[in-house]
Amino acid sequence: MVGSVGKVSMDLREKADLLPEEFDPKEISAPVDSQPNGVLEGMDGKSREIVLGRNVHKLCFAINEPEADDEVTGEREAYMASVLARYRKSLIERTKHHLGYPYNLDFDYGALSQLQHFSINNLGDPFIESNYGVHSRQFEVGVLDWFARLWELERNEYWGYITNCGTEGNLHGFLVGREVFPDGILYASRESHYSVFKAARMYRMECIRVDTLVSGEIDCKDFRNKLVQNKGKPAIVNVNIGTTVKGAVDDLDMVIQTLEESGFRDRFYIHCDGALFGLMMPFVKRAPKVTFKKPIGSVSVSGHKFVGCPMPCGVQITRLEHIKVLSSNVEYLASRDATIMGSRNGHAPIFLWYTLNRKGYRGFQKEVQKCLRNAHYLKDRLKAAGVSAMLNELSSTVVFERPKDGEFVRRWQLACEGNIAHVVVMPNVTVEKLDTFLNELIQNRSSCYEDGNIPFPCIAADIGDENCLCSLHQK
Amino acid sequence: MVGSVGKVSMDLREKADLLPEEFDPKEISAPVDSQPNGVLEGMDGKSREIVLGRNVHKLCFAINEPEADDEVTGEREAYMASVLARYRKSLIERTKHHLGYPYNLDFDYGALSQLQHFSINNLGDPFIESNYGVHSRQFEVGVLDWFARLWELERNEYWGYITNCGTEGNLHGFLVGREVFPDGILYASRESHYSVFKAARMYRMECIRVDTLVSGEIDCKDFRNKLVQNKGKPAIVNVNIGTTVKGAVDDLDMVIQTLEESGFRDRFYIHCDGALFGLMMPFVKRAPKVTFKKPIGSVSVSGHKFVGCPMPCGVQITRLEHIKVLSSNVEYLASRDATIMGSRNGHAPIFLWYTLNRKGYRGFQKEVQKCLRNAHYLKDRLKAAGVSAMLNELSSTVVFERPKDGEFVRRWQLACEGNIAHVVVMPNVTVEKLDTFLNELIQNRSSCYEDGNIPFPCIAADIGDENCLCSLHQK
Repeated sequence: MVGSVGKVSMDLREKADLLPEEFDPKEISAPVDSQPNGVLEGMDGKSREIVLGRNVHKLCFAINEPEADDEVTGEREAYMASVLARYRKSLIERTKHHLGYPYNLDFDYGALSQLQHFSINNLGDPFIESNYGVHSRQFEVGVLDWFARLWELERNEYWGYITNCGTEGNLHGFLVGREVFPDGILYASRESHYSVFKAARMYRMECIRVDTLVSGEIDCKDFRNKLVQNKGKPAIVNVNIGTTVKGAVDDLDMVIQTLEESGFRDRFYIHCDGALFGLMMPFVKRAPKVTFKKPIGSVSVSGHKFVGCPMPCGVQITRLEHIKVLSSNVEYLASRDATIMGSRNGHAPIFLWYTLNRKGYRGFQKEVQKCLRNAHYLKDRLKAAGVSAMLNELSSTVVFERPKDGEFVRRWQLACEGNIAHVVVMPNVTVEKLDTFLNELIQNRSSCYEDGNIPFPCIAADIGDENCLCSLHQK
Repeated sequence: MVGSVGKVSMDLREKADLLPEEFDPKEISAPVDSQPNGVLEGMDGKSREIVLGRNVHKLCFAINEPEADDEVTGEREAYMASVLARYRKSLIERTKHHLGYPYNLDFDYGALSQLQHFSINNLGDPFIESNYGVHSRQFEVGVLDWFARLWELERNEYWGYITNCGTEGNLHGFLVGREVFPDGILYASRESHYSVFKAARMYRMECIRVDTLVSGEIDCKDFRNKLVQNKGKPAIVNVNIGTTVKGAVDDLDMVIQTLEESGFRDRFYIHCDGALFGLMMPFVKRAPKVTFKKPIGSVSVSGHKFVGCPMPCGVQITRLEHIKVLSSNVEYLASRDATIMGSRNGHAPIFLWYTLNRKGYRGFQKEVQKCLRNAHYLKDRLKAAGVSAMLNELSSTVVFERPKDGEFVRRWQLACEGNIAHVVVMPNVTVEKLDTFLNELIQNRSSCYEDGNIPFPCIAADIGDENCLCSLHQK
């Protein structure tokens, strides 16, 4: 046995790279030498480039075979401890300068660090006990009950589980929709998350893109036209409760009305993608209410976004009757197989349980109000400084002119698309942080555009004439 | 705003249940009142029951709205701390009595607890940098390089990522296979993991089940027959590197030979499901080698099994050329969208990196040898005590007569199927633990079968005549 193993081990040691001598956080955030390494043909016939970042291999921490005397010298342990300490330092710095992604980075789960020593796994269905005893179903079901109440579905009428991320929620929602209506067509607005289109492709479903308004909301006129052209097949509809880029909330009531008026009564399935705002909306005045008292099939929300969690996770809630349809098609299992994943992270439910219990509805309400207030503050100050900016009524996502300086974008970890960038105001984003950001932005912009000698770009097509402050639209 | 929010909050408080007064670990492990709540029609026409466990709602930790004065009194914090302390105690107990699932529960990630305060997210492709700076791609790529070397694929020829679990690896493998051969038929042995059949259904792929030998390995004669009947379409094949129940390893070389002899040269895609043994096989003498020097398309392995990790995770490695096929079909993204999930747990790569670096190949080699030794010890002692048992040559999964006493099964968290149960000997399973288990089992069995007055069951159909020790076969 030693022979073959020894050989593998030797080959590997010869090939192995030297470990990086120094880990410099600046190197990680240095400018990306983007080199397109692929060209795609777009739907519109135009070719698109796949933009890849730097070669991550150069920066990675290679794994080397320990020396025989490592246990004695302790060098390996010391080396690893130093890599981790420097990594931690870079995480602190990166967490401090972060505005672009909707992740609440403000959490303290110190009380839960004692649980990191356990391999907690809620494999399979949250409501069906497994023989594996190291699970956290008691916490998971508590969290699911809380969300089912929030979205007004009775305990004995709902089914759900804690997912790994927003994408898993969408994958689940559309799988359920497809099993309910096997020949259904998936309708989703162009500004839906890319996982919606990924699901259509994975599931081999016909998919129709619906236009959007400038705000980013689904355009129900276009939706109606497309429905009417496809009356023969049921509709599976994605409703965005907060689009990724503009934070736009599709009008659920109008979507339902459009479906019913187009002759789709009882022949549609609606999945609400609430990854971003699913947990903020219940606390926003005038928001169309997401509730199972309306004819919707499923709702998903992310757990690592507004709630905040060390790792990505999400909550999926659907009607138990739909899960029965899903299960009745599983002929090979003598149990219910209704989750997308098999083994499931048992730590995430405890994080969520902990935060929901501590903050409660009142706590979330206060945080949502603070986020909306700070988002308005940011938008107002941007506009006062002459920067084109937009803030949707129900949103804490401030969309504005994309900064010209890529280094600035990376420093603040802004998410950009075309001519626009956005900041998602989460509970950990304070006025002080926004002030620092604004001051840097205004200074940086001024020098990029040579104090206005170079004209500022027009982004009216992205955010509307009334929000654009370019020389043409500012009057 | 207060109006509507206040109402939601009030409704919820009225509906909310009392928090469980006491959390008794025994209650969690108490006998399950299995109540079938669904009947399925099986492929064979026979109906199967879905067996559900107890109502988890009764045991869950409900989330209640905090009282207005909770912050002052500290009662809420105290309550939560006590729930968590009792939960931790139950985890210790459950971790101690665990033999049935292939999870290495022996790890110490104390050095990493400092990272729990960060929202680490490797969203998207591991090799394409995101603007989100709080990631761990440096560690992820280090881990991927290690596995690519293990399976002999060059750095510039592989692509991979760290998944959430074995199921995600299989979902990815078969998606890649289907994109390479859109009309391919999926072939998988009957004893493949259920996620393989789930993938076929999700992806709307034709799927053919292949018979197995008594050992649990794929029956290549039956495979050949089924291939010959479907020569018109390419083959996408699942090869088990360790089946879930019997730990059987499909003979990769014979599968490839069967494909080529049946006229499928260049018209097949092989995914190796190495969830269980993918990381043990390289260290097992006489095991057919899993390597990309053979015509395979992808390999997946679980990270929380042999390696050990607090949360489920896995590693997926495939050929970069296949990922280019996958990406060329994505017309809506100006980036590569090749992972199943979007947001991805950034902690898991650090756990894996830490263990691989500490243990190295030599460390794993020692652990594999120990597991195999202990598995043989268990099988020998079972047989010596007159218990029918089987151990596949390349495996540490000991299959034996299912204990009659359900309470005993739950206490040791044994995974059962039909007439058999199994113990998966992982690095945390010591001889002492096995001795405790054996002594309890033999005593329990003796009393269940009234010291042999009730005949012991025959399980020859499951494990072969030569391994069965029932009164018929023991001679």
